[in-house]
This record gives sequence, C-alpha cells and structure tokens, in this order.
Amino acid sequence: MPIAKGYAATDASSPLTPFTFERRAPNDDDVVISIKYSGICHSDIHQARNEWGNSIYPMVPGHEIAGVVTEVGAKVTKFKVGDHVGVGCFVDSCTQCATRDLDNEQYMPGLIGTYNAYEADGTTPTYGGYSDSIVVKEGYVLSIPENLPLDAAAPLLCAGITLYSPLKHWNAGPGKKVAIVGMGGLGHMGVKLGAAMGADITVLSQSLSKKEDGLKLGAKTYYATSDAETFKTLAGSFDLILCTVSADIDWNAYLSLLKVDGAMVLLGVPEKPVPVHAFSLIGGRRTLAGSMIGSIKETQDMLDFCGRHDIVSEIETISMDQVNEAYERVLKSDVRYRFVIDMATM
Amino acid sequence: MPIAKGYAATDASSPLTPFTFERRAPNDDDVVISIKYSGICHSDIHQARNEWGNSIYPMVPGHEIAGVVTEVGAKVTKFKVGDHVGVGCFVDSCTQCATRDLDNEQYMPGLIGTYNAYEADGTTPTYGGYSDSIVVKEGYVLSIPENLPLDAAAPLLCAGITLYSPLKHWNAGPGKKVAIVGMGGLGHMGVKLGAAMGADITVLSQSLSKKEDGLKLGAKTYYATSDAETFKTLAGSFDLILCTVSADIDWNAYLSLLKVDGAMVLLGVPEKPVPVHAFSLIGGRRTLAGSMIGSIKETQDMLDFCGRHDIVSEIETISMDQVNEAYERVLKSDVRYRFVIDMATM
Repeated sequence: MPIAKGYAATDASSPLTPFTFERRAPNDDDVVISIKYSGICHSDIHQARNEWGNSIYPMVPGHEIAGVVTEVGAKVTKFKVGDHVGVGCFVDSCTQCATRDLDNEQYMPGLIGTYNAYEADGTTPTYGGYSDSIVVKEGYVLSIPENLPLDAAAPLLCAGITLYSPLKHWNAGPGKKVAIVGMGGLGHMGVKLGAAMGADITVLSQSLSKKEDGLKLGAKTYYATSDAETFKTLAGSFDLILCTVSADIDWNAYLSLLKVDGAMVLLGVPEKPVPVHAFSLIGGRRTLAGSMIGSIKETQDMLDFCGRHDIVSEIETISMDQVNEAYERVLKSDVRYRFVIDMATM
Repeated sequence: MPIAKGYAATDASSPLTPFTFERRAPNDDDVVISIKYSGICHSDIHQARNEWGNSIYPMVPGHEIAGVVTEVGAKVTKFKVGDHVGVGCFVDSCTQCATRDLDNEQYMPGLIGTYNAYEADGTTPTYGGYSDSIVVKEGYVLSIPENLPLDAAAPLLCAGITLYSPLKHWNAGPGKKVAIVGMGGLGHMGVKLGAAMGADITVLSQSLSKKEDGLKLGAKTYYATSDAETFKTLAGSFDLILCTVSADIDWNAYLSLLKVDGAMVLLGVPEKPVPVHAFSLIGGRRTLAGSMIGSIKETQDMLDFCGRHDIVSEIETISMDQVNEAYERVLKSDVRYRFVIDMATM
C-alpha cells in the first residue's frame, strides 16, 4: 500500500492537521499521481466543517488536483510516467448502473467523490488532493496540456469545468450576451472562458471593486448589483446569466434581466430556498436551471480548450500549513481569485 | 360604428350583466366576425374580479372566440365572408417596436389583449368574446379548419395554444415522457395534443376522479399526487412536466420527477412565489421555465394540427345568462372540461 502524507479535518470544528494514510494498491487500470498542486474550493470548507451534514472523518479535502504521473497499471493506455495530469471532483461513477450516461456522468446516482466518499466497495474512504499522491482509475484522470502551468491549471478541474459546462450547454458564443454573477473563484473563470468562446461578457458583482480585473480578464462591461439602476439599465438584456454566488439574492430581479427565451443557470447553492414568481418565468419563456461541474469527456474538452487559448486560473499560491488561514480568507472573499496549495511544502 | 351586444363586468364584485357597446368601424385590414361561441378561461374570472389589479371597466371578457366572417376590409386577402375563424388572447402587438419578433410576439412588450386593454391609439378599450361580434385586424385572425365544430374549437384559442406551444418548444414527441399536472381545461388539452404528437403522456392529478377520462383522451398512465408514493414511483421519470395548476404546490417535489436535462414548465400562475431549492435544479441540470400562450403563427399551426388530428376541447355548452353560475363552477373545478357560451343565446 502506498503511504500518502496530507492534511485532514478530523471533526467539524478543528483546524486541518497533518495526516498520514494509505492509498489503495494500484490496480491494472490505475494511474499513480504525484500531486504538485491542489486548489481550495469553497465546498472543501463546507464539507470539512460538515455544513452539508454528510461528512466522513478524517477527511482529506481537495478536488482541484494537478500533478505528474509516477506509475501506471499494466492496462493503462492513455497515460505514461511523467505526463501532466489532473483529477477533479469525482474518481468513479455508476459502475453498476444500467442507464449510465457517459456524457452526463456527473448527474448519475453512482458518482464517487474524490474525497468524503467511499470507493465502489462501499467501505474504502476516498481522500482528496491536500496530499502528496493519489491513485485514480485511468478513466477519471485528465490530461493537462503541457503549455499550462500546473499550479494555475489546478482550479480548472472544478472552477473551470463548473463554468465551461453551462457556457457550452447554453451555447455561449459570438452574438450571445452572457452575464456572470459574482467575480470570485468561479466567476473569474466564467469571464475568461466565456470571452474566449466569443460571447459578450458582463460581470454583475456586488461592488465595482474588481472592475479593473474583470475588464482585463475579458468582460466588456461591469456593473454593481448594489446599484438599483443596474437592474433598470440591463432589463431584458441577456441570453444567459450564470449565477456563481451562494448568497441569498433575489433571483426574480436577475430573471428580469433575461431576454425572451433567456436562461439563468445556478452554479452556487444558497442555504435557503429562494421564492420564485411564476410571472418571472412565464413572461418571456424564461428558464431557471442548474448545472454541476461536467463529465470527464467535457472536462477534457475544457482542458484542451484552455490549452489552445492559454487560459488558467488567477491564483495565490500558499504552503500546506497556511490552509486554515486560507479558509478564513475564502470566507471573507479575500482572495484573487483562487488559493492553490503547493504540495512541495508538504 | 357596428353595435355589439354582450355581457360585461361593471366592477370587481358584481355579476356580469347585459351590455351594448360600439365596435370600432372596420378598416381596410380588418375582418368583421359574427361570434358563435366563446370559451370561459379561468383568467376571465381573475380579470373580471380585478384579481390581477389591472382591470378596466366595463369589461367584456372572452379570448377563446370562434365565429364566422361577415365582412372583410378592402385590403384583406386571407379571409372571405363565411370563413370559420378564431380570435385568441391578443388582437395586436408591438406596432411601434423595433425588435418585433413575429415568432414570439406573445412575449413582446406591445401586446394588446383581446379585452381589458386599449387599442394602439391608447384610448379605445378592447372588448372580448362574450358578445355577438368583433372587429379584428386580419393579422390576428386565425383560420379554423372546416372539419372542427366551432363550439369545441373555441377553447383551442387559449387552452389549446397554451399547451401546444410548450409541447412543441420542448420537443414532445415519440420517445419522450411527458407529465401533465392538472386535469382541467388546460390539462386535458395537454393530454390530447401531447398524445397526438406521439409522446408518452402521464397525468398527475390530485385525485384519480378523472382517471378514466384521462386514459380515454390519450394518457398512458394516471397518478394521484395526493398519494406520496407517486413521487417515489416516478422519481427521475420525465423529460417534460407541464404544470397547468395555479394552486400552491411544492415545485421541488415535481422537479425531482424530471430526468437529467428535463424541464418543468409553468403555465399557471400561483398567487404567491414558490420557494425553490437550488439543489432541485443543479442535481440533474434541470430546468424550471414558464410559457405563455403562443404566437399567431404558432396558433395557426396548432389549429391546422388539430384539424389533421380531429382534436377539439371537451366542452359543456351554456347560454349567455348562465355565465355567472359557470364562473362559480369553474372556481370549484366543476366542469369537464371547458365551458363554452353559445352566442345564439345572446
């Protein structure tokens, strides 16, 4: 059994601490990865602190993993030692499922999370990316284009695909007006990816404090949602609104910014349900939808797209022992725009 | 000025009473119609009683109009005296609008309702179908196929198109599982139209009291939503759910019945906003949308489709002086499935 070193949450209220554990022995179809960088996603904090009520301890968070292949099983054909690879939010899916849909595996019931889950055997816990190595089935390993730096590429595995998938699914591209609500770890990726697809991007952020960044990353316009005039000015403007915030906002106000047949897509999860007026949807055949990460196939498409367009995340690199401090800063939105842990500091 | 006889609401609380009024003098592009039948839509009651707060009195309700052409203006090319025609929910649209979209005119800001509205001049009130004649611009008059009886065809002009449009827009057809929520004036049209399109139709109704009718009209299966087992049995089943009820129901429970990428479309308007959980949408890329009637082009397509498939509404014909009693019965859902006023009783 390969021994891994990482950081783990041992309960809902304590800081993360060093943790040594066994990875499973690699099978014929497994890839062994030396993790170089691991991004910090807000959902790591939710789960480390049991805010979704389903936490398994000890928990090694991390599902924005970038590293280098150190070993491959006998049946592995897509990867070789030395390849730059990534692992995202899940490491297996629907192994028993008759209706398995490989284009939508992220929505299938048998999804196995990269951490805070159990392997298909139902008993072996999965441990995530805040560690120095991981063993993953070939089919769930992504190839990271060589021209992308591994540190800034790590957040593509969750933040990147979370925005890429709905932009593609709802046909963002030339001639389409797209609003990105929230200019954080997710939102800034939406600006970069949407602009690279040729869409006309507007950022809707609480304040104008990140306006300069937003325009530099590719947004055409940038509005403060704290200004009531914004909702008058932009009424009926957008084909697509991607909502990355999980704060309690009035979705009806945002729905009024859609054109006829426009769609608003939720990517963040507010704690409480949000009241929706039927008229907000009926009066323009508008859509309120949700989207969650993307399939393995789509994640690879996204990484290839990012390789062609030189797109990575804007990051702040930290050492492993700064993770608890970084969590506090994420909660205060004090990061531009994603923390990435340098695993060489492990 | 042609004189018309009808029934009007004179304020929000009195019953409808006989009312004689002038129709506008026909222009070159107008069609004069002798109204033979007028359906009763629940929204007639909402508006007669000022429940949407925008009522103009005296009000002659009625936007499910079927009749015969008695006169055409000099420039009218599509209709001649004696033709069977219909008028639906609007009689003009966006006359000043630069972005006028003829495929979606029902969602354009300049829509002029068949009643409880003003003509493009902003001062002449429009009066609806509870009357013996109407003058309508050729472009807003629909042709009713000769094989359809005028009485049972009248409700196609609102109830029919309200279901046809979302069934078409969300691609109901062979291989698609479609649920119709509510088995009333709207719902029963959804069953007939959806089945004729080749979709696999399920009715979700509060009770099983109309099950026999539902199956006869084309539904494959019929479930009572008062039975909690229904939501377990049907979890993840449908490509499309059309919700015709305006009662306060838990949309999240219905959203859980959708497949991945499924859509639930609201056609009825509950009084209060409904709380929606983001997870109900995100966990399967599900859509909550709204739809409102259809364009003139689409309404004509619907009537032609109904002509080919011999589809009309299930109706109960009443005399004009029974309208107030009929309103009370609509409010108690005591009608199978649409009241139609016989204008010969005027």
